[in-house]
Amino acid sequence: MDKLCKYGTHRVIEPKGVLPQPAWKIDNTPKIYKNEILIDVDTLNIDSASFTQIEEQSIKEGKEVSDIILETVSKRGKQHNPVTGSGGMLIGKVADIGEQLSGKIDLKKGDKIATLVSLSLTPLFVERIDSVRSETDQVDIEGKAILFESGIYAKLPDDIDDNLALAVLDVAGAPAQTQRLVKEGDTVIVIGAGGKSGLLCLYEAKKKVGQNGKVIAVEFSDEGIERVKEVGAYDEIIQGDATDPVELLEKVENVLDGEMADLTINCVNIPSTELSSILVTKDRGTIYFFSMATSFTQAALGAEGVGKDIDMIIGNGYAYNHSDIAINILREDQAIRNMFQRIYT
Amino acid sequence: MDKLCKYGTHRVIEPKGVLPQPAWKIDNTPKIYKNEILIDVDTLNIDSASFTQIEEQSIKEGKEVSDIILETVSKRGKQHNPVTGSGGMLIGKVADIGEQLSGKIDLKKGDKIATLVSLSLTPLFVERIDSVRSETDQVDIEGKAILFESGIYAKLPDDIDDNLALAVLDVAGAPAQTQRLVKEGDTVIVIGAGGKSGLLCLYEAKKKVGQNGKVIAVEFSDEGIERVKEVGAYDEIIQGDATDPVELLEKVENVLDGEMADLTINCVNIPSTELSSILVTKDRGTIYFFSMATSFTQAALGAEGVGKDIDMIIGNGYAYNHSDIAINILREDQAIRNMFQRIYT
Ligand SMILES: NC(=O)c1ccc[n+]([C@@H]2O[C@H](COP(=O)([O-])OP(=O)(O)OC[C@H]3O[C@@H](n4cnc5c(N)ncnc54)[C@H](OP(=O)(O)O)[C@@H]3O)[C@@H](O)[C@H]2O)c1
Ligand SMILES: NC(=O)c1ccc[n+]([C@@H]2O[C@H](COP(=O)([O-])OP(=O)(O)OC[C@H]3O[C@@H](n4cnc5c(N)ncnc54)[C@H](OP(=O)(O)O)[C@@H]3O)[C@@H](O)[C@H]2O)c1
Repeated sequence: MDKLCKYGTHRVIEPKGVLPQPAWKIDNTPKIYKNEILIDVDTLNIDSASFTQIEEQSIKEGKEVSDIILETVSKRGKQHNPVTGSGGMLIGKVADIGEQLSGKIDLKKGDKIATLVSLSLTPLFVERIDSVRSETDQVDIEGKAILFESGIYAKLPDDIDDNLALAVLDVAGAPAQTQRLVKEGDTVIVIGAGGKSGLLCLYEAKKKVGQNGKVIAVEFSDEGIERVKEVGAYDEIIQGDATDPVELLEKVENVLDGEMADLTINCVNIPSTELSSILVTKDRGTIYFFSMATSFTQAALGAEGVGKDIDMIIGNGYAYNHSDIAINILREDQAIRNMFQRIYT
Repeated sequence: MDKLCKYGTHRVIEPKGVLPQPAWKIDNTPKIYKNEILIDVDTLNIDSASFTQIEEQSIKEGKEVSDIILETVSKRGKQHNPVTGSGGMLIGKVADIGEQLSGKIDLKKGDKIATLVSLSLTPLFVERIDSVRSETDQVDIEGKAILFESGIYAKLPDDIDDNLALAVLDVAGAPAQTQRLVKEGDTVIVIGAGGKSGLLCLYEAKKKVGQNGKVIAVEFSDEGIERVKEVGAYDEIIQGDATDPVELLEKVENVLDGEMADLTINCVNIPSTELSSILVTKDRGTIYFFSMATSFTQAALGAEGVGKDIDMIIGNGYAYNHSDIAINILREDQAIRNMFQRIYT
């Protein structure tokens, strides 16, 4: 066996030498090494871009969603979607703590936690899938997962339903980055505004832009528009298709009198929305791509192709305090809490 | 025919409704519409990540590089590498200017220009490939290209060899962004430092960090190390493989006494170097991914996976003045000019 590594390279099977995230296959044996934490898993929250892809595949190939998940986990030792490359996260109870960590971390056996590292690098051993909840991308299982020494986690709060916390923590990076990126007076466009991360971003953006700023919600479906209205954190709503850049640009120009966004936040769960994001952003503006369906080359070459000098940021799922920021939105805003409670629990 | 569009959607064949860059196939008929510019192409500069892929394919499939290029162009109407998604740029002479643009732009027939938009969106009609220069990723052709109304270009300077200008303009975004991102006193790591963009980034970084800053060059091959030394714009050199994150981190920690980079600039031409870039960057530091071989999900999930709160920027090929900034380096620095002259002309 390799030397124990805080990043978990000792569990990498193929190819050797890489970290667990890019690895094709990792060792999911549900028995911990000295620097690991064992988790009794209750529920997986599959990343939205990944879940959307799995559902499409399930229809196309006539397979169950649960079978596709089991197949991936048995092939790779982790729920790492081979098509989208993305994962998700999980909640469960601490079952065991390796002796090198015991006493040095604020966890004890039995604590309920959410892992804040992606499923795409988390060794996962599934005994049984109990239920797949398509509306929420959540999957209840019997099984075990391993958290590496470098892995981050959050203890689940007492005042919030577990599945609700799981849903919100899945996208905790988005509102945290929104807090950082939005400046007073900014015009902010959130694309995919009626989704889970979109609504949280709308809320944080609306708080930060102040009286002189503007928050524009772009959503596709009627249901999404209803969700945006129910939460109410916006100045304008545009119903439109983010895969049609020219049409969306026209709609934005209409609403903003030809102006464009200082900051665009992309929260969709489908591919091919890079150019829309680029066109609606002003020169020297910023795009925050939270969507896991973003293509690096489409973004880089798309901006160059239309001669737009903008900063484009890759949505890092982690930011200091992101779990607190996200959970606190549920404490601060009753409208979001009510809706999320309805949808996710 | 669709309405003429400044972004060139009127040339999109498949799928309809998207812009020319993400389009699978565009119309490369070498006859301009009223809002287009026709170019008599001399030389293509294939993007390095794309050229590397084409060469690998040529060996694997026993085909000529030129045949693979002709195949792509005939299938797609543009030199848009279907595997890497990237393009490159070209130089040529203005052959015709559409009547809607004539007199409104600073070009006349016969002017020598470089297109500063990617080949991945430029309609290209190839009559013949004259020569493929593998050492420089340059391909001399007979053919025509179309520049859209929104397309950017630079007139070729008189004091610099055309092929040298072409080589440098291909990566002009990198030194321009380096100028913006580097702050006085920063520790900057350039990965792939001995390549074309890497050397230009080293130079700009070294100028900006000042006395209290540090520039670390990371390169793989002996030849690359020699190029870095010849240019001389560095404080430390590390020879290492950026696809091996754990080993590279160790080497960086040795050189920096356990410290890490404020800013990491990734200029490699191969996949799977995201995690190295992440590990060698300090918390709240920044990574500028110029490499077109960057995977969005590997970067986003990689950072989350190791709990690093860093900002990761997608290398937009365009920035204000980027062509002047890049060309000026050749005027300012004799060492770079001499080397590039030797390599690219
Ligand atoms: N960077 C990270 O670390 C990280 C972490 C977690 C998740 N993510 C990614 O973040 C994204 C959003 O996640 P989520 O959980 O918030 O997803 P979600 O709840 O499914 O929301 C996606 C939203 O996008 C909207 N949308 C779909 N197609 C659209 C179109 N053509 N035009 C405009 N809007 C459209 C959807 O509208 P409908 O109402 O029509 O469905 C929905 O409101 C996903 O791609 C996910 O993979 C990233
Ligand atoms: N974002 C944009 O708009 C844009 C525009 C143009 C180009 N690009 C991209 O920028 C990148 C660099 O372009 P370029 O023209 O500068 O390429 P280049 O001259 O080929 O340089 C690439 C460098 O990376 C080094 N390298 C290769 N494998 C390595 C490894 N395992 N570890 C460390 N270094 C390694 C190479 O070293 P060796 O000496 O061993 O080969 C070489 O010095 C490419 O990916 C290209 O596609 C982006």
